[in-house]
Amino acid sequence: MKLVIGNKNYSSWSMRPWVLLKHFGIAFEEVKLRFDFTPDSAFYRELARFSPVGKVPVLIEDDGFAVWDSLAITEYIADRHPDLPIWPREVQARARARSLCAEMHSGYAALRGHCPMNIDADLAAVGQRLLATEPKLQQDLNRLCAAWSEALQASGGPFLFGEFSAADAFFAPVVMRVTRYSLPLPAVCQSYAEAVSAAAGVRDWISDALAERDFLDFEEPYRAQP
Amino acid sequence: MKLVIGNKNYSSWSMRPWVLLKHFGIAFEEVKLRFDFTPDSAFYRELARFSPVGKVPVLIEDDGFAVWDSLAITEYIADRHPDLPIWPREVQARARARSLCAEMHSGYAALRGHCPMNIDADLAAVGQRLLATEPKLQQDLNRLCAAWSEALQASGGPFLFGEFSAADAFFAPVVMRVTRYSLPLPAVCQSYAEAVSAAAGVRDWISDALAERDFLDFEEPYRAQP
Repeated sequence: MKLVIGNKNYSSWSMRPWVLLKHFGIAFEEVKLRFDFTPDSAFYRELARFSPVGKVPVLIEDDGFAVWDSLAITEYIADRHPDLPIWPREVQARARARSLCAEMHSGYAALRGHCPMNIDADLAAVGQRLLATEPKLQQDLNRLCAAWSEALQASGGPFLFGEFSAADAFFAPVVMRVTRYSLPLPAVCQSYAEAVSAAAGVRDWISDALAERDFLDFEEPYRAQP
Repeated sequence: MKLVIGNKNYSSWSMRPWVLLKHFGIAFEEVKLRFDFTPDSAFYRELARFSPVGKVPVLIEDDGFAVWDSLAITEYIADRHPDLPIWPREVQARARARSLCAEMHSGYAALRGHCPMNIDADLAAVGQRLLATEPKLQQDLNRLCAAWSEALQASGGPFLFGEFSAADAFFAPVVMRVTRYSLPLPAVCQSYAEAVSAAAGVRDWISDALAERDFLDFEEPYRAQP
């Protein structure tokens, strides 16, 4: 099985299934394609060999079958590994986990638009400025903290639904955003962000992202150099 | 069990789980909230009683437990009814169905942005103009037709994965868009659009939408009156 991903420093969607597979010890071969969104780039040409959609991540089975989109890949992994607690075991916790992931999948537009993932960068000053000028970013942050707090209170933590699950893999890139832009969090959410950052698969991804040293200017609205 | 939805003429996200529940004969009480996106509107005040997110659809269990987002609701229904073929039975078909739904859930921005659902309207002239002026709309349409064609060829139709499944419920609002804006489709996709429009749950939704007669100007970028 192959997982096709983009640059680890920038590709928030790629991070989700990579972290999930690592956390649960599911073996896969990583295929990393360097981001280049110009038409007919090597990125698009390589990606077209695997998937009709032109986006990472894509999971490729040994028979060539492709599963795309981070959420569909997550469901496929859960489907193939019913023995593993990819989603919470209890039906309402599982439903809530999926509500939170789906809400992130199609929402939080201000957080995602204004604060692109950039694991290597310290963007605290940018975060402070954005919070002062972009009211929708504060709204997204408020909703995020309410969602996390409710789940952590119900489960007792340290992860959203107790043990590490797909929901935490899904929010791992969000943790990267809120910490790199130093967006202020209540204590319970700060502890959660630290727990996610220290989880084995997440730590490995961060370490690879920092070693990448591949500055892509079109992914860097806030820095002129590394 | 309650399903909280918005206006049937306009609410594409609400249409998905409503059609799915109707198709599979799962009983529910419909709670319709009239769209009004001004702050502190009756829409938002009512919705806050059910869900922390401020969006429809929301599924409410008899004990008050809320599941939100059309995709998470779909997974919850599948989870609670393992006897019903909500998703295709075969694992790769199921994965493909989820890839297509997730791709729609977070993608097709041009189709969704330029062609808001409006079941009551004939917007053929608008569709023709949009295709001439918005190249990304044509790209979305090309991708949609490729995705539908591949699934229909693999399954033999009449629905994306043979029998009507969650994937068809997910694409039902898309069928409403492409037919109301008269976007040109290859024959295989045209037949599929007709099959979806004639499916029992979809026909019921359309009939309710046409009976609604509730013209909301903020949902009508292309018409000044019904």
